[in-house]
Amino acid sequence: MGLNNGISELIRDFGSEKIGLEMHQLMTELFPLCRSITGDGVRQSLQIISQHLPLKIQEVPTGTQVFDWEIPYEWNIRDAYVKNSSGEKVIDFQESNLHVVNYSIPVHKTITLAELKDHLFSLPEHPDWIPYQKSYFSNTWGFCLQHRKLQALKDEKYEVFIDASLEPGNLTYGEYYLEGEMEDEILISCHCCHPSLCNDNLSGMVLTAFLGKYLSSIPLRYSYRLLFIPSTIGSVTWMALNKTQLSKIRHGLVAACVGDPGHPTYKKSRNGRAEIDRAVEHILKHSGEPFSVDDFSPFGYDERQFSSPGINLPIGSLTRTSYGRFPEYHTSADNLEFVRPLYLADSLKKYLAVFDVLENNKYFFNCQPYGEPRLGKRGLTGAFGGGKDAQSIEKALLWVLNFSDGENNLLDIAERAELPFSTVKEAASALIKVGLLREQQSKSILHI
Amino acid sequence: MGLNNGISELIRDFGSEKIGLEMHQLMTELFPLCRSITGDGVRQSLQIISQHLPLKIQEVPTGTQVFDWEIPYEWNIRDAYVKNSSGEKVIDFQESNLHVVNYSIPVHKTITLAELKDHLFSLPEHPDWIPYQKSYFSNTWGFCLQHRKLQALKDEKYEVFIDASLEPGNLTYGEYYLEGEMEDEILISCHCCHPSLCNDNLSGMVLTAFLGKYLSSIPLRYSYRLLFIPSTIGSVTWMALNKTQLSKIRHGLVAACVGDPGHPTYKKSRNGRAEIDRAVEHILKHSGEPFSVDDFSPFGYDERQFSSPGINLPIGSLTRTSYGRFPEYHTSADNLEFVRPLYLADSLKKYLAVFDVLENNKYFFNCQPYGEPRLGKRGLTGAFGGGKDAQSIEKALLWVLNFSDGENNLLDIAERAELPFSTVKEAASALIKVGLLREQQSKSILHI
Amino acid sequence: MGLNNGISELIRDFGSEKIGLEMHQLMTELFPLCRSITGDGVRQSLQIISQHLPLKIQEVPTGTQVFDWEIPYEWNIRDAYVKNSSGEKVIDFQESNLHVVNYSIPVHKTITLAELKDHLFSLPEHPDWIPYQKSYFSNTWGFCLQHRKLQALKDEKYEVFIDASLEPGNLTYGEYYLEGEMEDEILISCHCCHPSLCNDNLSGMVLTAFLGKYLSSIPLRYSYRLLFIPSTIGSVTWMALNKTQLSKIRHGLVAACVGDPGHPTYKKSRNGRAEIDRAVEHILKHSGEPFSVDDFSPFGYDERQFSSPGINLPIGSLTRTSYGRFPEYHTSADNLEFVRPLYLADSLKKYLAVFDVLENNKYFFNCQPYGEPRLGKRGLTGAFGGGKDAQSIEKALLWVLNFSDGENNLLDIAERAELPFSTVKEAASALIKVGLLREQQSKSILHI
Repeated sequence: MGLNNGISELIRDFGSEKIGLEMHQLMTELFPLCRSITGDGVRQSLQIISQHLPLKIQEVPTGTQVFDWEIPYEWNIRDAYVKNSSGEKVIDFQESNLHVVNYSIPVHKTITLAELKDHLFSLPEHPDWIPYQKSYFSNTWGFCLQHRKLQALKDEKYEVFIDASLEPGNLTYGEYYLEGEMEDEILISCHCCHPSLCNDNLSGMVLTAFLGKYLSSIPLRYSYRLLFIPSTIGSVTWMALNKTQLSKIRHGLVAACVGDPGHPTYKKSRNGRAEIDRAVEHILKHSGEPFSVDDFSPFGYDERQFSSPGINLPIGSLTRTSYGRFPEYHTSADNLEFVRPLYLADSLKKYLAVFDVLENNKYFFNCQPYGEPRLGKRGLTGAFGGGKDAQSIEKALLWVLNFSDGENNLLDIAERAELPFSTVKEAASALIKVGLLREQQSKSILHI
Repeated sequence: MGLNNGISELIRDFGSEKIGLEMHQLMTELFPLCRSITGDGVRQSLQIISQHLPLKIQEVPTGTQVFDWEIPYEWNIRDAYVKNSSGEKVIDFQESNLHVVNYSIPVHKTITLAELKDHLFSLPEHPDWIPYQKSYFSNTWGFCLQHRKLQALKDEKYEVFIDASLEPGNLTYGEYYLEGEMEDEILISCHCCHPSLCNDNLSGMVLTAFLGKYLSSIPLRYSYRLLFIPSTIGSVTWMALNKTQLSKIRHGLVAACVGDPGHPTYKKSRNGRAEIDRAVEHILKHSGEPFSVDDFSPFGYDERQFSSPGINLPIGSLTRTSYGRFPEYHTSADNLEFVRPLYLADSLKKYLAVFDVLENNKYFFNCQPYGEPRLGKRGLTGAFGGGKDAQSIEKALLWVLNFSDGENNLLDIAERAELPFSTVKEAASALIKVGLLREQQSKSILHI
Repeated sequence: MGLNNGISELIRDFGSEKIGLEMHQLMTELFPLCRSITGDGVRQSLQIISQHLPLKIQEVPTGTQVFDWEIPYEWNIRDAYVKNSSGEKVIDFQESNLHVVNYSIPVHKTITLAELKDHLFSLPEHPDWIPYQKSYFSNTWGFCLQHRKLQALKDEKYEVFIDASLEPGNLTYGEYYLEGEMEDEILISCHCCHPSLCNDNLSGMVLTAFLGKYLSSIPLRYSYRLLFIPSTIGSVTWMALNKTQLSKIRHGLVAACVGDPGHPTYKKSRNGRAEIDRAVEHILKHSGEPFSVDDFSPFGYDERQFSSPGINLPIGSLTRTSYGRFPEYHTSADNLEFVRPLYLADSLKKYLAVFDVLENNKYFFNCQPYGEPRLGKRGLTGAFGGGKDAQSIEKALLWVLNFSDGENNLLDIAERAELPFSTVKEAASALIKVGLLREQQSKSILHI
């Protein structure tokens, strides 16, 4: 069966600049839509992504029981504003969909400033930013605005108008399945329920879309499943509808906040020593750049749902700066300028590098395990050119031979040798070619 | 069955100042008695404690074989002095029982200063303190005195007189058993063989007595066994007489040196990762005060007997400054001023907090383990008031739900969440109340 | 069966100065011979060692298949030089056997300086040293010389002459087997294929010879096997010819670079927590001197062959400065002045101390495991004289009693007690003598 070079060739030829711009372009298209956990904003977003990746779009009716939850009424909004007594729009949904508290019930009345203020949200510490607020499951309404504007409101009467509907409908999500050699799956999940917010989480949607596009161009050992779902209720819904299939998921990542200038952060799976954890940490460690690793906690994105005790999947989350740790988080400052093409492309490349590890992390047997085999007579001495890389591969040959006893996979060996996985993989490929290595089938083939 | 709030309510209402004074008062009553490993000093001490706690007092006859040991002759002393040639008492047992080497054989003769000096002990580095010396099993006699007084002795004849008896009798110890819901026991043991010495170990006797008093006022899951025994020979005796019952002991602490101003020190059980070790370390870590943790060693107090390889009980020792590390140790400076009410009460509270962990450290199952359950519809959102504590409990709800898979007990969860056990317990209580948590009976019920 | 004091008595009476000089004297005799992986240089070296230790000398014919390798042609050299056009020898094998690339094919012709230079090796950074080069399995020839001399060569014609033979013959190695009480073996292996180089590895040959001499003078629990073999091909050959016997090897050390002034370095076995690893680390830690410990890697000396996955023996390597880390490595500066008697003797003593641990690292049961036994009535109180050593032994008595539960061997106890093995062993001996300790036979006796 050998090793899969598909992803490493993708990475080798990776045109970061061009790819970053394409990703940012897709984000720009998605940006204006007013997404929420249900409604047309999600539908339109998934349609746009479908132009890049043939998504299967699912509609789950209001009232459907999904584990401990129930699909809520569908929310749609057409317009909203607050007018002062002179008839001027002091807050206008058309300027930014963040101005309306997401999932607000419809309202149309005239009220005093004092009454209005009970429904206003602003950020005193960032007076020019609009905060992002939501009111799922709570039957209320509100507006968000710049603190500077809030302070300028005069004590007069205001007409408030939210032209929204909250009615029986559906919860919508998108799914993309890529069949590999094995039934065992790698899950990539992103949330698609935030309105005009870029890092959290248009960046995750775009990255997931591009992953699908690139992975579908090469043969793969694992099958891949990509989910574009509203946060919490979306992952709960998907799990409830696919409960019998969950055991096929061997590894997973939740993609969010992958476009800001901060360094990568990995949040470990609940297990903490799963293969996905070791693969991501390995790639980050050998990137030569700063990075952080956080232990699992039951807070954050949908990894907390995938890690609930009855599900317990080995799924981590690879972000750049993690949620809540950048000041732009959940404000209008998390915009198209905050997220940069360069960082989007870098994140995509790191995700691919992680999957390269998973695709190739197999167990082998050294076929000449008594003493060192003679590499010279097999053309493996000086076979990798000169320079530092060649030296590393030559070292890796001996590491792979020594530890290929059926008990250490290539990642174990790379970690022990303190060499990049790609170097160890290259050495293993060379050894397979000359017949010095054979796969430990019972461990490598997994579930089929 | 739920959780036991008895101890946490005790702690919540704990009046440190009043309790500290009561503890010190009991210590003051016990102080003057001349205790040893046998004899009336022990009997009288146990009588005084019986006014607070109904002890069962055991008498074990001289000559009884207890494992590798034998109960020795009983020692009693009525008076002792050294008179100079003018008939003045230069050393007087009535001033301090430390003046006589504990377990001295009777003597009455007139000797030279040189001969006397072979039987005198003093501390040149603390010339105003009387050292504490003992001569168990060695048939000798001696006096202890201030180095300053020793140096002032003139070269003349001295009358030495020790009115003691060393005769067949008994070894006396006290025991208190508090029946809980389970047969499984927590053992608290203190030594009662030191004469007028406060930190080592009247403080331990007083703390053990007050533990008994407070614990007997509430319903308990574990049964508790409190031992007031002479050091070494006492614990060996008790184990020999109760050998078939030892397997009921699930956790234990040896109480000593609990009244000095130093910070708490925990000496781990022989196992080092027993539940008692983790419970004590957790309480100390979350106390916000400095503390030390020592590995087990076969030196110290009776934990070394309880940890002998044929017994091997999970018993640690929670002290303040540990034996030998404070200069007052085994001298007349370890007195009623050295031990303070404040520290006695603080130690008592910490012991209770440890038992609160043990009483409630159960395994649970999340009853809605697929995704997160909806807390809002069960009234658990915003249910704990505002402020930092409320936030901690709300976080703890998610930690408890995520890790209640029957494999993590509440202490495991508290450690992983880096939250105090009491917070995690409060969250668990709330979850039990709304039916989101059920006990993993087979792990929690233990031995019955 | 008790404990074996043979080695500790050797160490106690160890005359470092005299022994160091004897070791250096043997090295001086071996120095001039031109060793290689085959040939008369090895034979003569083994003959010299046989005067100290009755070696069994093995001859393995050219062409014999040994695992993945084949015994090569035997190489012998009689003379070699390079003459300038005036007939002066500008390079002369008689001055140093390092001048000829080891395993050079015979050559005799006249060539230009440019042609000659393709076959010359020197060290620009050490212009007065001759490098050591070899050309096994590659059918070429060459000369090594001081860089200063190379630069002085004039542009003229040179006569090159290497009077060597490369013909069917044998690979020669020496073996010494010392029968102990058990069939279980400790292996000590050194390589004997380097020409006039002292630290790497005449020092290892001399140390191994002296180990054999000293060990053969005392009764031993383990059997010992000492190998004097050419590097790589030698260990592969020996393993191939003794494959069925390899399972008897319980511990091993590869001896090399044991005479330089650097501090000891231990390279762990592949397993990393084998008993040999713990024994060596213990001895180094308690030596009070600086030392290094390296993880296993598949580079270095024959430990890499003994650790190949099909062999996987628990064999480490105890050196002083390890190969490649001292500038004199593989140059004419690794000579009789670089290696000093003092360091040779110190290394020998450390090897013996390690074997003392292995010989005595048994499991015991405390015969009075319920509470502490009374040491006084058995004469063990104050039995070891005064001073710090006596105090350590008295402490060790309690450590040994507490942890002799059949699950901790004496090394485990020494590590836990942070005491030297020799102290713990002395305490165990005393306890055996009074009947307080008995051997846990099933664990201690191993393979017989």
